[in-house]
Amino acid sequence: MRYELYYWPDIQGRGEFVRLALEEAGAEYVDVARMPARRGMGVPALLRFLEGRAERRPPFAPPFLKAGKQVIGQTANILLFLGARLGLAPSGESDRLWAHQLQLTIADFVGEAHDTHHPIAVGLYYEDQKPEARRRTVAFIDERLPKFLGYFERVLERNPRRSGYMLGGRISYVDLSMFQVIEGLRYAFPRAMARRASRIPRLVALHGRVAARPRIAAYLASDRRVPFNEADVFRCYPELDQR
Amino acid sequence: MRYELYYWPDIQGRGEFVRLALEEAGAEYVDVARMPARRGMGVPALLRFLEGRAERRPPFAPPFLKAGKQVIGQTANILLFLGARLGLAPSGESDRLWAHQLQLTIADFVGEAHDTHHPIAVGLYYEDQKPEARRRTVAFIDERLPKFLGYFERVLERNPRRSGYMLGGRISYVDLSMFQVIEGLRYAFPRAMARRASRIPRLVALHGRVAARPRIAAYLASDRRVPFNEADVFRCYPELDQR
Repeated sequence: MRYELYYWPDIQGRGEFVRLALEEAGAEYVDVARMPARRGMGVPALLRFLEGRAERRPPFAPPFLKAGKQVIGQTANILLFLGARLGLAPSGESDRLWAHQLQLTIADFVGEAHDTHHPIAVGLYYEDQKPEARRRTVAFIDERLPKFLGYFERVLERNPRRSGYMLGGRISYVDLSMFQVIEGLRYAFPRAMARRASRIPRLVALHGRVAARPRIAAYLASDRRVPFNEADVFRCYPELDQR
Repeated sequence: MRYELYYWPDIQGRGEFVRLALEEAGAEYVDVARMPARRGMGVPALLRFLEGRAERRPPFAPPFLKAGKQVIGQTANILLFLGARLGLAPSGESDRLWAHQLQLTIADFVGEAHDTHHPIAVGLYYEDQKPEARRRTVAFIDERLPKFLGYFERVLERNPRRSGYMLGGRISYVDLSMFQVIEGLRYAFPRAMARRASRIPRLVALHGRVAARPRIAAYLASDRRVPFNEADVFRCYPELDQR
Protein backbone atom coordinates (compact mmCIF):
# COMPACT_ATOMS: atom_id res chain seq x y z
CA MET A 1 0.00 0.00 0.00
CA ARG A 2 1.36 3.40 -1.04
CA TYR A 3 -0.04 5.98 1.36
CA GLU A 4 -0.63 9.60 0.45
CA LEU A 5 -0.20 12.07 3.29
CA TYR A 6 -1.76 15.51 2.88
CA TYR A 7 -0.34 18.18 5.14
CA TRP A 8 1.07 21.70 4.96
CA PRO A 9 4.55 21.46 3.43
CA ASP A 10 6.44 24.06 5.48
CA ILE A 11 5.70 22.98 9.04
CA GLN A 12 5.97 19.86 11.16
CA GLY A 13 2.64 20.58 12.79
CA ARG A 14 0.19 17.81 13.45
CA GLY A 15 1.24 16.02 10.28
CA GLU A 16 4.57 15.21 11.90
CA PHE A 17 2.98 12.61 14.16
CA VAL A 18 1.89 10.74 11.04
CA ARG A 19 5.22 11.25 9.25
CA LEU A 20 7.10 9.74 12.19
CA ALA A 21 4.93 6.61 12.15
CA LEU A 22 5.32 6.16 8.39
CA GLU A 23 9.09 6.69 8.65
CA GLU A 24 9.61 4.31 11.59
CA ALA A 25 7.70 1.61 9.74
CA GLY A 26 9.59 2.18 6.50
CA ALA A 27 6.22 2.56 4.80
CA GLU A 28 5.88 3.65 1.21
CA TYR A 29 4.30 7.11 1.20
CA VAL A 30 4.12 10.40 -0.63
CA ASP A 31 4.06 13.67 1.29
CA VAL A 32 1.79 15.12 -1.37
CA ALA A 33 1.90 18.85 -0.61
CA ARG A 34 5.70 18.77 -0.52
CA MET A 35 5.82 17.50 -4.12
CA PRO A 36 5.70 19.80 -7.16
CA ALA A 37 2.38 21.34 -8.12
CA ARG A 38 3.33 20.88 -11.78
CA ARG A 39 3.10 17.14 -11.21
CA GLY A 40 -0.45 17.49 -9.91
CA MET A 41 0.62 17.60 -6.31
CA GLY A 42 1.74 20.39 -3.98
CA VAL A 43 -0.60 22.54 -1.91
CA PRO A 44 -3.16 22.78 -4.76
CA ALA A 45 -3.75 19.02 -4.47
CA LEU A 46 -4.37 19.44 -0.74
CA LEU A 47 -6.76 22.33 -1.27
CA ARG A 48 -8.71 20.38 -3.88
CA PHE A 49 -9.63 17.92 -1.15
CA LEU A 50 -10.55 20.56 1.38
CA GLU A 51 -12.54 22.69 -1.01
CA GLY A 52 -13.84 20.02 -3.35
CA ARG A 53 -17.58 19.94 -3.75
CA ALA A 54 -17.72 16.26 -4.53
CA GLU A 55 -15.90 14.76 -1.55
CA ARG A 56 -18.46 12.66 0.29
CA ARG A 57 -16.44 12.55 3.46
CA PRO A 58 -14.59 15.85 3.51
CA PRO A 59 -11.82 16.31 6.09
CA PHE A 60 -12.15 19.42 8.24
CA ALA A 61 -8.43 20.21 8.13
CA PRO A 62 -5.05 18.63 7.34
CA PRO A 63 -3.54 16.20 8.05
CA PHE A 64 -5.47 13.58 6.18
CA LEU A 65 -4.32 10.32 4.69
CA LYS A 66 -5.37 8.63 1.50
CA ALA A 67 -5.13 4.86 1.60
CA GLY A 68 -6.56 3.39 -1.57
CA LYS A 69 -10.03 4.89 -1.80
CA GLN A 70 -10.24 5.74 1.87
CA VAL A 71 -9.62 9.29 3.09
CA ILE A 72 -8.96 9.49 6.83
CA GLY A 73 -8.75 12.72 8.80
CA GLN A 74 -7.83 13.73 12.35
CA THR A 75 -4.28 12.92 13.43
CA ALA A 76 -5.14 10.45 16.18
CA ASN A 77 -7.64 8.72 13.92
CA ILE A 78 -5.02 8.34 11.19
CA LEU A 79 -2.67 6.75 13.72
CA LEU A 80 -5.45 4.46 14.94
CA PHE A 81 -5.82 3.30 11.34
CA LEU A 82 -2.10 3.06 10.59
CA GLY A 83 -1.05 1.57 13.93
CA ALA A 84 -2.48 -1.87 13.17
CA ARG A 85 -1.20 -1.86 9.58
CA LEU A 86 2.32 -0.65 10.30
CA GLY A 87 2.93 -2.88 13.31
CA LEU A 88 3.06 0.18 15.55
CA ALA A 89 0.15 -0.67 17.84
CA PRO A 90 -0.86 -3.61 19.99
CA SER A 91 -3.45 -5.94 18.51
CA GLY A 92 -5.97 -6.54 21.32
CA GLU A 93 -8.95 -4.20 21.51
CA SER A 94 -8.36 -2.94 25.05
CA ASP A 95 -4.67 -2.32 24.35
CA ARG A 96 -5.51 -0.50 21.15
CA LEU A 97 -7.98 1.73 22.99
CA TRP A 98 -5.38 2.48 25.66
CA ALA A 99 -2.86 3.50 22.98
CA HIS A 100 -5.50 5.70 21.37
CA GLN A 101 -6.47 7.22 24.73
CA LEU A 102 -2.86 8.25 25.27
CA GLN A 103 -2.67 9.66 21.75
CA LEU A 104 -5.79 11.77 22.38
CA THR A 105 -4.25 13.08 25.59
CA ILE A 106 -1.11 13.97 23.62
CA ALA A 107 -3.37 15.79 21.13
CA ASP A 108 -4.88 17.82 24.00
CA PHE A 109 -1.39 18.68 25.23
CA VAL A 110 -0.28 19.77 21.76
CA GLY A 111 -3.40 21.91 21.41
CA GLU A 112 -2.59 23.70 24.66
CA ALA A 113 1.05 24.15 23.64
CA HIS A 114 -0.14 25.72 20.38
CA ASP A 115 -2.49 28.10 22.14
CA THR A 116 0.37 29.59 24.19
CA HIS A 117 1.25 31.71 21.14
CA HIS A 118 -2.33 31.93 19.85
CA PRO A 119 -4.59 32.39 22.89
CA ILE A 120 -7.04 34.74 21.16
CA ALA A 121 -7.46 33.67 17.55
CA VAL A 122 -5.76 31.44 14.98
CA GLY A 123 -6.69 34.07 12.41
CA LEU A 124 -4.46 36.69 14.06
CA TYR A 125 -0.66 36.90 14.11
CA TYR A 126 1.25 36.19 17.29
CA GLU A 127 2.29 39.84 17.23
CA ASP A 128 -1.37 40.80 17.61
CA GLN A 129 -1.82 38.79 20.82
CA LYS A 130 1.52 39.06 22.61
CA PRO A 131 0.38 40.21 26.08
CA GLU A 132 -2.28 37.48 26.14
CA ALA A 133 0.27 34.93 24.92
CA ARG A 134 2.59 35.88 27.74
CA ARG A 135 -0.17 35.42 30.31
CA ARG A 136 -1.30 32.13 28.85
CA THR A 137 2.25 30.80 28.67
CA VAL A 138 2.90 31.56 32.34
CA ALA A 139 -0.11 29.41 33.24
CA PHE A 140 0.95 26.74 30.75
CA ILE A 141 4.47 26.47 32.12
CA ASP A 142 3.45 26.66 35.78
CA GLU A 143 0.42 24.38 35.70
CA ARG A 144 -0.29 22.52 32.51
CA LEU A 145 3.23 21.47 31.49
CA PRO A 146 3.95 19.82 34.88
CA LYS A 147 0.52 18.20 34.93
CA PHE A 148 0.79 16.65 31.45
CA LEU A 149 4.45 15.65 31.74
CA GLY A 150 3.87 14.21 35.20
CA TYR A 151 1.01 12.17 33.84
CA PHE A 152 3.00 10.71 30.95
CA GLU A 153 5.95 9.99 33.24
CA ARG A 154 3.55 8.05 35.47
CA VAL A 155 2.28 6.08 32.50
CA LEU A 156 5.85 4.99 31.71
CA GLU A 157 6.46 4.15 35.36
CA ARG A 158 3.33 2.04 35.66
CA ASN A 159 3.76 0.08 32.44
CA PRO A 160 3.89 -3.41 33.95
CA ARG A 161 6.37 -4.50 31.28
CA ARG A 162 8.87 -1.85 32.44
CA SER A 163 9.98 -1.66 28.84
CA GLY A 164 10.67 2.05 28.79
CA TYR A 165 7.90 2.38 26.18
CA MET A 166 4.51 3.89 26.87
CA LEU A 167 2.67 0.61 26.60
CA GLY A 168 3.55 -3.03 26.39
CA GLY A 169 6.97 -4.33 25.56
CA ARG A 170 7.78 -2.59 22.32
CA ILE A 171 7.60 0.65 20.45
CA SER A 172 4.24 2.05 19.27
CA TYR A 173 3.09 5.19 17.52
CA VAL A 174 2.44 6.68 20.98
CA ASP A 175 6.19 6.61 21.72
CA LEU A 176 6.95 8.34 18.43
CA SER A 177 4.41 11.06 19.25
CA MET A 178 5.77 11.43 22.77
CA PHE A 179 9.23 11.95 21.27
CA GLN A 180 7.86 14.68 19.02
CA VAL A 181 6.15 16.44 21.94
CA ILE A 182 9.34 16.47 24.04
CA GLU A 183 11.36 17.60 21.04
CA GLY A 184 8.89 20.38 20.28
CA LEU A 185 8.61 21.56 23.88
CA ARG A 186 12.40 21.69 24.17
CA TYR A 187 12.50 23.86 21.07
CA ALA A 188 9.72 26.16 22.29
CA PHE A 189 10.54 26.30 26.02
CA PRO A 190 14.18 25.28 26.50
CA ARG A 191 14.50 26.83 29.96
CA ALA A 192 11.21 25.50 31.30
CA MET A 193 12.01 22.04 29.98
CA ALA A 194 15.52 22.11 31.44
CA ARG A 195 14.04 22.95 34.83
CA ARG A 196 11.70 19.96 34.62
CA ALA A 197 14.15 17.40 33.22
CA SER A 198 15.06 15.81 36.54
CA ARG A 199 11.37 15.17 37.29
CA ILE A 200 10.77 13.23 34.07
CA PRO A 201 13.71 10.83 33.70
CA ARG A 202 11.68 8.18 31.91
CA LEU A 203 10.36 10.63 29.32
CA VAL A 204 13.86 11.96 28.73
CA ALA A 205 15.12 8.41 28.22
CA LEU A 206 12.23 7.58 25.90
CA HIS A 207 13.00 10.66 23.81
CA GLY A 208 16.61 9.51 23.44
CA ARG A 209 15.62 5.95 22.65
CA VAL A 210 13.29 7.02 19.85
CA ALA A 211 15.80 9.51 18.42
CA ALA A 212 18.38 6.72 18.19
CA ARG A 213 16.21 4.32 16.20
CA PRO A 214 17.94 3.90 12.85
CA ARG A 215 15.02 4.92 10.64
CA ILE A 216 14.06 7.85 12.87
CA ALA A 217 17.68 9.03 13.07
CA ALA A 218 17.96 8.83 9.28
CA TYR A 219 14.68 10.70 8.87
CA LEU A 220 15.62 13.47 11.30
CA ALA A 221 18.90 13.99 9.43
CA SER A 222 17.18 14.08 6.04
CA ASP A 223 15.52 16.99 4.29
CA ARG A 224 12.22 15.17 4.61
CA ARG A 225 12.17 16.51 8.19
CA VAL A 226 10.94 20.11 8.07
CA PRO A 227 12.98 22.26 10.47
CA PHE A 228 11.21 23.87 13.43
CA ASN A 229 10.08 27.37 12.63
CA GLU A 230 7.87 30.18 13.89
CA ALA A 231 4.88 29.34 11.71
CA ASP A 232 4.61 25.97 13.40
CA VAL A 233 2.83 24.52 16.45
CA PHE A 234 5.98 24.68 18.58
CA ARG A 235 7.56 28.13 18.33
CA CYS A 236 10.62 29.54 19.98
CA TYR A 237 9.77 32.96 21.37
CA PRO A 238 12.34 33.59 24.12
CA GLU A 239 10.10 36.24 25.70
CA LEU A 240 7.55 33.51 26.48
CA ASP A 241 10.02 31.02 27.98
CA GLN A 242 10.62 33.03 31.12
CA ARG A 243 9.71 32.82 34.74
CA MET B 1 -23.06 -5.12 31.03
CA ARG B 2 -23.57 -2.46 33.70
CA TYR B 3 -21.37 0.51 32.80
CA GLU B 4 -19.95 2.91 35.34
CA LEU B 5 -19.51 6.48 34.13
CA TYR B 6 -17.17 8.73 36.07
CA TYR B 7 -17.69 12.43 35.53
CA TRP B 8 -18.14 15.63 37.53
CA PRO B 9 -21.65 15.59 38.97
CA ASP B 10 -22.66 19.23 38.61
CA ILE B 11 -21.98 19.91 34.96
CA GLN B 12 -22.90 18.43 31.59
CA GLY B 13 -19.39 18.96 30.29
CA ARG B 14 -17.70 16.35 28.18
CA GLY B 15 -19.40 13.59 30.14
CA GLU B 16 -22.70 14.56 28.56
CA PHE B 17 -21.67 13.12 25.20
CA VAL B 18 -21.33 9.74 26.90
CA ARG B 19 -24.53 10.14 28.94
CA LEU B 20 -26.54 10.83 25.77
CA ALA B 21 -25.26 7.65 24.12
CA LEU B 22 -26.01 5.52 27.18
CA GLU B 23 -29.48 7.06 27.47
CA GLU B 24 -30.40 6.68 23.79
CA ALA B 25 -29.38 3.01 23.92
CA GLY B 26 -31.28 2.39 27.14
CA ALA B 27 -28.05 0.99 28.58
CA GLU B 28 -27.72 0.04 32.20
CA TYR B 29 -25.29 2.50 33.79
CA VAL B 30 -24.38 4.27 37.00
CA ASP B 31 -23.34 7.93 36.95
CA VAL B 32 -20.97 7.23 39.82
CA ALA B 33 -20.05 10.72 41.00
CA ARG B 34 -23.73 11.70 41.16
CA MET B 35 -24.42 8.89 43.66
CA PRO B 36 -23.93 9.28 47.42
CA ALA B 37 -20.39 9.20 48.79
CA ARG B 38 -21.69 7.26 51.79
CA ARG B 39 -22.41 4.39 49.42
CA GLY B 40 -18.80 4.42 48.23
CA MET B 41 -19.55 6.55 45.23
CA GLY B 42 -19.74 10.31 44.68
CA VAL B 43 -16.79 12.50 43.78
CA PRO B 44 -14.45 10.64 46.18
CA ALA B 45 -14.85 7.51 44.04
CA LEU B 46 -13.88 9.54 40.97
CA LEU B 47 -10.86 11.07 42.69
CA ARG B 48 -9.67 7.66 43.87
CA PHE B 49 -9.23 6.70 40.22
CA LEU B 50 -7.48 9.91 39.25
CA GLU B 51 -5.18 10.01 42.24
CA GLY B 52 -4.77 6.30 42.85
CA ARG B 53 -1.21 5.09 42.91
CA ALA B 54 -2.08 1.59 41.76
CA GLU B 55 -4.00 2.28 38.56
CA ARG B 56 -1.96 0.78 35.73
CA ARG B 57 -3.73 2.77 33.08
CA PRO B 58 -4.67 6.01 34.80
CA PRO B 59 -7.02 8.38 32.99
CA PHE B 60 -5.76 11.95 32.63
CA ALA B 61 -9.15 13.50 33.38
CA PRO B 62 -12.87 12.68 33.53
CA PRO B 63 -14.90 11.40 31.81
CA PHE B 64 -13.85 7.80 31.99
CA LEU B 65 -15.90 4.64 31.76
CA LYS B 66 -15.54 1.41 33.62
CA ALA B 67 -16.75 -1.62 31.68
CA GLY B 68 -15.96 -4.77 33.62
CA LYS B 69 -12.26 -4.52 34.32
CA GLN B 70 -11.58 -2.07 31.53
CA VAL B 71 -11.18 1.64 32.26
CA ILE B 72 -11.49 3.81 29.17
CA GLY B 73 -10.73 7.52 29.07
CA GLN B 74 -11.10 10.36 26.56
CA THR B 75 -14.65 11.14 25.48
CA ALA B 76 -14.28 10.22 21.81
CA ASN B 77 -12.47 7.02 22.75
CA ILE B 78 -15.29 6.04 25.11
CA LEU B 79 -17.78 6.58 22.29
CA LEU B 80 -15.62 4.57 19.90
CA PHE B 81 -15.80 1.72 22.44
CA LEU B 82 -19.50 2.12 23.23
CA GLY B 83 -20.65 2.79 19.66
CA ALA B 84 -20.24 -0.79 18.53
CA ARG B 85 -21.71 -2.23 21.74
CA LEU B 86 -24.74 0.03 21.95
CA GLY B 87 -25.71 -0.16 18.29
CA LEU B 88 -24.88 3.51 17.86
CA ALA B 89 -22.14 3.18 15.26
CA PRO B 90 -21.76 1.53 11.87
CA SER B 91 -19.98 -1.80 11.82
CA GLY B 92 -17.52 -1.57 8.90
CA GLU B 93 -14.03 -0.29 9.69
CA SER B 94 -14.02 2.65 7.29
CA ASP B 95 -17.47 3.77 8.45
CA ARG B 96 -16.40 3.49 12.08
CA LEU B 97 -13.32 5.61 11.40
CA TRP B 98 -15.45 8.21 9.63
CA ALA B 99 -17.80 8.40 12.64
CA HIS B 100 -14.80 8.75 14.94
CA GLN B 101 -13.24 11.40 12.72
CA LEU B 102 -16.42 13.47 13.00
CA GLN B 103 -16.48 12.96 16.76
CA LEU B 104 -12.89 14.21 17.04
CA THR B 105 -13.81 17.28 15.01
CA ILE B 106 -16.73 17.86 17.38
CA ALA B 107 -14.26 17.57 20.27
CA ASP B 108 -12.08 20.27 18.69
CA PHE B 109 -15.14 22.50 18.27
CA VAL B 110 -16.17 21.98 21.91
CA GLY B 111 -12.63 22.78 23.06
CA GLU B 112 -12.72 26.07 21.17
CA ALA B 113 -16.18 26.90 22.54
CA HIS B 114 -14.86 26.27 26.05
CA ASP B 115 -11.86 28.52 25.53
CA THR B 116 -14.08 31.50 24.69
CA HIS B 117 -14.59 31.98 28.44
CA HIS B 118 -11.17 30.62 29.41
CA PRO B 119 -8.66 31.89 26.85
CA ILE B 120 -5.82 32.36 29.34
CA ALA B 121 -5.95 29.58 31.92
CA VAL B 122 -8.34 26.91 33.15
CA GLY B 123 -6.95 27.58 36.62
CA LEU B 124 -8.31 31.15 36.64
CA TYR B 125 -11.90 32.34 36.96
CA TYR B 126 -13.70 33.81 33.97
CA GLU B 127 -13.77 37.07 35.90
CA ASP B 128 -9.97 37.12 35.79
CA GLN B 129 -9.83 36.92 32.00
CA LYS B 130 -12.84 38.88 30.81
CA PRO B 131 -11.20 41.26 28.29
CA GLU B 132 -9.35 38.34 26.71
CA ALA B 133 -12.56 36.27 26.69
CA ARG B 134 -14.34 39.05 24.86
CA ARG B 135 -11.63 39.21 22.22
CA ARG B 136 -11.50 35.47 21.78
CA THR B 137 -15.27 35.20 21.53
CA VAL B 138 -15.45 37.80 18.77
CA ALA B 139 -13.05 35.68 16.71
CA PHE B 140 -14.91 32.51 17.64
CA ILE B 141 -18.29 33.88 16.56
CA ASP B 142 -17.00 35.57 13.40
CA GLU B 143 -14.68 32.86 12.14
CA ARG B 144 -14.70 29.54 13.95
CA LEU B 145 -18.43 29.09 14.55
CA PRO B 146 -19.31 29.58 10.85
CA LYS B 147 -16.42 27.37 9.78
CA PHE B 148 -17.31 24.44 12.03
CA LEU B 149 -21.09 24.70 11.55
CA GLY B 150 -20.66 25.06 7.80
CA TYR B 151 -18.52 21.95 7.78
CA PHE B 152 -21.02 19.83 9.70
CA GLU B 153 -23.88 21.12 7.56
CA ARG B 154 -21.91 19.99 4.50
CA VAL B 155 -21.41 16.56 6.01
CA LEU B 156 -25.19 16.20 6.42
CA GLU B 157 -25.74 17.46 2.88
CA ARG B 158 -23.26 15.03 1.37
CA ASN B 159 -24.40 11.93 3.22
CA PRO B 160 -25.30 9.81 0.20
CA ARG B 161 -28.17 8.23 2.14
CA ARG B 162 -29.81 11.64 2.61
CA SER B 163 -31.08 10.32 5.91
CA GLY B 164 -30.80 13.56 7.82
CA TYR B 165 -28.24 11.83 10.05
CA MET B 166 -24.53 12.54 9.99
CA LEU B 167 -23.62 9.21 8.46
CA GLY B 168 -25.42 6.31 6.91
CA GLY B 169 -29.12 5.69 7.22
CA ARG B 170 -29.67 5.76 10.95
CA ILE B 171 -28.79 7.50 14.17
CA SER B 172 -25.27 7.21 15.64
CA TYR B 173 -23.47 8.65 18.63
CA VAL B 174 -22.23 11.42 16.32
CA ASP B 175 -25.80 12.69 15.91
CA LEU B 176 -26.31 12.71 19.66
CA SER B 177 -23.11 14.71 20.13
CA MET B 178 -24.08 17.10 17.35
CA PHE B 179 -27.39 17.69 19.14
CA GLN B 180 -25.50 18.51 22.34
CA VAL B 181 -23.21 20.96 20.56
CA ILE B 182 -26.13 22.84 18.97
CA GLU B 183 -28.00 22.83 22.29
CA GLY B 184 -24.94 24.13 24.14
CA LEU B 185 -24.12 26.80 21.57
CA ARG B 186 -27.71 28.04 21.64
CA TYR B 187 -27.46 28.34 25.40
CA ALA B 188 -24.11 30.13 25.29
CA PHE B 189 -24.58 32.30 22.20
CA PRO B 190 -28.32 32.62 21.52
CA ARG B 191 -27.99 35.68 19.30
CA ALA B 192 -25.07 34.39 17.26
CA MET B 193 -26.84 31.08 16.75
CA ALA B 194 -30.10 32.78 15.77
CA ARG B 195 -28.21 34.76 13.14
CA ARG B 196 -26.74 31.57 11.68
CA ALA B 197 -29.87 29.39 11.81
CA SER B 198 -30.92 29.94 8.20
CA ARG B 199 -27.49 28.81 6.98
CA ILE B 200 -27.63 25.47 8.77
CA PRO B 201 -31.11 24.07 8.11
CA ARG B 202 -29.97 20.44 8.21
CA LEU B 203 -28.24 20.86 11.58
CA VAL B 204 -31.31 22.57 12.99
CA ALA B 205 -33.49 19.70 11.77
CA LEU B 206 -31.07 17.12 13.17
CA HIS B 207 -31.17 18.84 16.55
CA GLY B 208 -34.96 18.64 16.58
CA ARG B 209 -35.00 15.04 15.42
CA VAL B 210 -32.66 13.95 18.22
CA ALA B 211 -34.55 15.96 20.85
CA ALA B 212 -37.76 14.18 19.86
CA ARG B 213 -36.41 10.64 20.25
CA PRO B 214 -38.44 9.08 23.06
CA ARG B 215 -35.52 8.10 25.28
CA ILE B 216 -33.68 11.39 24.73
CA ALA B 217 -36.85 13.40 25.39
CA ALA B 218 -37.43 11.45 28.61
CA TYR B 219 -33.82 11.95 29.65
CA LEU B 220 -33.84 15.69 28.98
CA ALA B 221 -36.99 16.03 31.08
CA SER B 222 -35.54 14.00 33.95
CA ASP B 223 -33.31 15.12 36.79
CA ARG B 224 -30.57 12.92 35.38
CA ARG B 225 -29.94 15.79 32.94
CA VAL B 226 -27.83 18.39 34.74
CA PRO B 227 -29.09 21.89 33.86
CA PHE B 228 -26.77 24.24 31.96
CA ASN B 229 -24.82 26.47 34.31
CA GLU B 230 -21.87 28.84 34.43
CA ALA B 231 -19.36 26.30 35.71
CA ASP B 232 -19.84 24.26 32.55
CA VAL B 233 -18.30 24.10 29.08
CA PHE B 234 -21.14 26.11 27.53
CA ARG B 235 -21.80 29.26 29.55
CA CYS B 236 -24.26 32.04 29.03
CA TYR B 237 -22.45 35.34 29.45
CA PRO B 238 -24.58 37.88 27.55
CA GLU B 239 -21.62 40.27 27.33
CA LEU B 240 -19.82 37.74 25.12
CA ASP B 241 -22.74 37.04 22.77
CA GLN B 242 -22.58 40.40 21.08
CA ARG B 243 -21.49 41.77 17.78
